[in-house]
Formats: sequence, structure tokens, C-alpha cells
Amino acid sequence: MTNKTYDVVAIGNAIVDVLALCDDRFIEEQEMRKGTMQLIDAARAEQLYGAMGQATQVSGGSAANTLAGMADLGAKTAFIGKVNKDSLGKIFRHDMRAIGVDFDTPEAENGIPTARCLIAVTPDGQRTMNTYLGAAGEVFEVDMDAGLIGQAKILYGEGYMWDKDCTKAALRHAFEVARAAGTKIAFTLSDVFCVERSRDEYLAMIKNDFDILFCNHEEAKALYPNKTLEEIFDVLQGQCEVVAITCGSKGSVILTKNERIQVDAIWVDEVVDTTGAGDLYAAGFLYGYCNKLPLMECGKLGSACASDIITHLGARAQKPLKRLLVA
Amino acid sequence: MTNKTYDVVAIGNAIVDVLALCDDRFIEEQEMRKGTMQLIDAARAEQLYGAMGQATQVSGGSAANTLAGMADLGAKTAFIGKVNKDSLGKIFRHDMRAIGVDFDTPEAENGIPTARCLIAVTPDGQRTMNTYLGAAGEVFEVDMDAGLIGQAKILYGEGYMWDKDCTKAALRHAFEVARAAGTKIAFTLSDVFCVERSRDEYLAMIKNDFDILFCNHEEAKALYPNKTLEEIFDVLQGQCEVVAITCGSKGSVILTKNERIQVDAIWVDEVVDTTGAGDLYAAGFLYGYCNKLPLMECGKLGSACASDIITHLGARAQKPLKRLLVA
Repeated sequence: MTNKTYDVVAIGNAIVDVLALCDDRFIEEQEMRKGTMQLIDAARAEQLYGAMGQATQVSGGSAANTLAGMADLGAKTAFIGKVNKDSLGKIFRHDMRAIGVDFDTPEAENGIPTARCLIAVTPDGQRTMNTYLGAAGEVFEVDMDAGLIGQAKILYGEGYMWDKDCTKAALRHAFEVARAAGTKIAFTLSDVFCVERSRDEYLAMIKNDFDILFCNHEEAKALYPNKTLEEIFDVLQGQCEVVAITCGSKGSVILTKNERIQVDAIWVDEVVDTTGAGDLYAAGFLYGYCNKLPLMECGKLGSACASDIITHLGARAQKPLKRLLVA
Repeated sequence: MTNKTYDVVAIGNAIVDVLALCDDRFIEEQEMRKGTMQLIDAARAEQLYGAMGQATQVSGGSAANTLAGMADLGAKTAFIGKVNKDSLGKIFRHDMRAIGVDFDTPEAENGIPTARCLIAVTPDGQRTMNTYLGAAGEVFEVDMDAGLIGQAKILYGEGYMWDKDCTKAALRHAFEVARAAGTKIAFTLSDVFCVERSRDEYLAMIKNDFDILFCNHEEAKALYPNKTLEEIFDVLQGQCEVVAITCGSKGSVILTKNERIQVDAIWVDEVVDTTGAGDLYAAGFLYGYCNKLPLMECGKLGSACASDIITHLGARAQKPLKRLLVA
């Protein structure tokens, strides 16, 4: 993995987040399941936006957030994903390039608008996401740049892309390309709903395909509905080279074949918005991993990046994350 | 002023802010004058955006920020300003209506894009603004809804609109309408550059037209370049019913014919972005004024709103400002 040009190449949904604070009643009235991601159509997006309060627009997308975080830390990264030529697409592409992520996937040509995610942020800092997928879902095998993927130490994919046949097929193809090129495969389970919809496929890929797996404790539970978290750790241990399970304010657990490492979360005075916490944990972790830091240090850097992102609205850092790197 | 439907009707530039953190070197390299607002054309906007880091998009506009703050506090307000039908225009209109500001000025029909302000925020929290005025500058006398203005206790205008002949003429017309309807006139000097460009007109209007004047200490100095701040207070005192001069972390001074009230600023742990500090001071002040609070209380509420807005990126409150109202 030493002679590769990129630390991480990621394939993900190219999304601009539209974040508004709301109360818990709003979540109920709009029949959302708090803390999850739900796919919505254009009509629902219009209606929900009309009901939301004044908003902040920030580039998002799970894997894209992770790459932005890694690039900010100093990693060499590239993104594969689809936007339209519209203004949200321009915002997304600008933000990726501005932070130093290579992003050259051509725009979607079919007029479907760039994806947006309407995010309701409750006073507890929890985020509930409603994604109009738009152009982000127009990712096909042909977009999987084999040369790019082969030049990566790690190919990173997001579970959110498992919801659509074409993006799923594109990811499967990318995994094959990676395997053939000696590129490791990392994956995030993304969301409880995603796990529930694709449990069997996920279980098979965890066993056969993934070198590095990210999930949170709720996604882990959705993976094995009848097991306790301890039992789940036992089952997952050794299935991948590394499994990193985030547990919110309780920190994270890193499993390797022979180790079980407990990493503390980092306290923040006020959690404003947890959007991107998992993505930024992955950013810190993967930066450490690519730089051959001990796994405990990878986890600590993940915690540091996650704690930084939850102090403000949106999943992109507002201050250079490099300051979190200890000498 | 008691039988009016609206507390404040404001005429202002309808702008979406694009905020990115940068270092002081960037301000130098891009030849900006730190802390000021500069008008730029479409080509410069494109070039500058390309040079800026990843950004956050939030509705802005000086008078619009003030109205949004007032509406959030519970005031009845309406906005007159121009957007295009593009996505930034939709964002601006959504945010005004979502916070409770009436905003029914029709969109510009000539295809000029909605205004955006590229804001470079330095580590000291200072903001340096570059405005592509676009559709916001397409405000004409015909847009001055006399019925609406007549139904306001206060008509509020921004100095930024003094830079363009058509918007200036529109404001002058609105002032006449207000005067005839018994609506008070409030005005903010907006920016040092604005004052330098229109000093004589400003001085005449301060003497003849304005009931309430807002400015910061630097704008006040630009108004009277050869005087000390104390001398300026002496000259301004009594020219309007109320003059409120903000002095950054030193608080504000409120001048009436017979009084000089010193109001403290409210300490915040970390100033992230001063964008909108003056606008939100005006919001708190005018809310208090419309609700007949003593001027000291108006100033304190202004300080509280200003201190809230500088703790995060962007000039729109992220938490309900109503919590700042003491019983």
C-alpha cells in the first residue's frame, strides 16, 4: 500500500445539506424517525423545506465529509460522485476542491438536480435527515475510474449507496477493481434503515469484502437484532482487519483479530449538531491508519475530529482540523 | 404610531451570504480592506469564490438580518427587496418567510441573478465582505409599497442602498411616503466606504430626515473625519430623536437630545464571525423601541442579540432569540 498516489479514494452521494434547528414536535408532526436518514422525492422535499425554519446550506454527503476531513488533515484524497451543473452542484464541487479533494467526475447530463439533504436538528443536537437523492443517485459502473481506484491505498464506500441498484452495482464493480489493484476496501454502514434493508448483503460483504468497517452501535445492533452489543463485538471481531464502532458520547471500540481497544469520546461543552460526527470519526481514523499510527491513536484522532464537528451546524469543519494533530 | 400593523418595514439588499474562514494573508493577497464591504462584478465574484475555502451559505443582507432578528423576537415586520427566481433567491425568500417576515416583493424579471456576498472571515472574527449586487440592485420607486410603508411604525433603510441611483431614489421616495403617513424613519450608515462616498447626503439626511440613526464608531468617524469620537457625540446629539452608535467590544452609546446612555457589550467566550453584529444590535434595539422599553433596555437587548450572532458563522440566529427577552 506504500506506492499509491492517494490515501483514500471514496465513492459517495454528492449532497448539499440544508440544516435548520427545530423542536421535537416538528419531528413528530413530519413523521420522521429521529436520528435516521430517509429518502424523499422532489415533491416531499419542496413541502418539507416549506415547513422548515430558516436554514444554513453546507456541503455534505457522508463519504464526501470524510474525505473533506482527511484532506483538511493533510491526506491525499479523491472523490467519485455525481452533481448537476446547477448552483448546488457548483457549491459541492467548489467545497471539495477548496479543501483539497480531487473531484473530477463529470456532471450528470440528464437535468436531474443536485442532491440535497434537509436536516432537522433538535435541541439535543441530534440530526434527522431527509435526502432528495437527485443527481447523486446517477452513479454508474462507467464512473468508477479504475486508474484512480488502483492508485488508492484505500477505497471507501458508503452504505447509503446500497439503496439504489445502479449505485450498488457501481460500488460492487469498484470493489472488484480495488481488490485486483491491491487497494484495501473500507465501508461505513451509514444508517440503521440502510442496514435493515440490506442486512444479508452487508453481512456477506463484512465477511468477504471489507478490510475496514465503520458503524455506530445502533447500526451494529440492526446488523444482529437479537444480540447484545458485547455479543456483537464477539461476532464481528476478526471478520475484517479492523472494525471501528462508534458509540456517541461513550466513545468508540476498535476490534482487530486479537485486540479490543476502547477509545474515549472527547467532551464538548455544547453539542449543536451531530451531523457528520461519524463521518469525521472515519476521517480522523483513516488519516491515522494511512499514516500507520497505532489504532488507539487512530481512534483518538477520530474522536477529536468528531468532537470538533458537533460544535457547529453542518458536517464540514470551520477551523483547520490540522490543529488536532499532536506532534 | 400605535395603530400601525407593522413594527418595522425595511427596504434592503436581498443577499445570500457565502462565508469562508481565511487567514489575514488572504485578505492582503485579494487586496481587500479588512472589515469593510466592497461591491464586485460577476467576473470578480467567480474568481474570488474560486480562491475561497469551503463555505457556508446563509441568508444575509443588512436590513434583512435586522428584520429576521426582530421577527424572531416576536415583532411584526415586512421586507421590501429584490431576488431572482434562482435557487439563491428561493433560499432568501424561504428564510425570510420561515422566520415570520412578510416578504412579497415580486422577483426581478430581467434574469439578473440573486445577490451574493462573499465573506472572508479571519481568525479574529472580523468579516470582510464582497458583494455581487445582482438582482438586489433592481429596486425601484414602483416597488415601494405605499400601503405597506404607511402601516409601519418605523421604516428602516440601509446605507448600502445609497450606492446605486435607482435604489437611492427608491429609498428617498419611501422616506416621503413614510413622512406623509406618520411612519418614523430609521437608517443605518452600513459601512465606512458608504459614508465616504455619500458623506454630504448622509449629513443632510441625519439633520432633516432620520428619526433613528444606527452606525458604528468607525462610520461615525468617517462622517466627521476631523473630529474625535467625543466631539462627534456632541455634534450628533439631538440631530435625530435617537442615535445609537455601536463600538464593538466596548458596547454602544445611545444619544437623545437630553441623554447620553452608555451600554455595555456582552462578553462571549469566542468570537467566530462578526457578520451581522450591527444588524442584530439594531434588531434588539428596535424591538425594544417598538415595545416602548427604556432606551437602556433597548441597548441591552441590542447587545444581547449582537453577542448571540457572533458566536457562529452567518448573520441569522441559530437559536430562538426570544430566549434573550427577560420577563
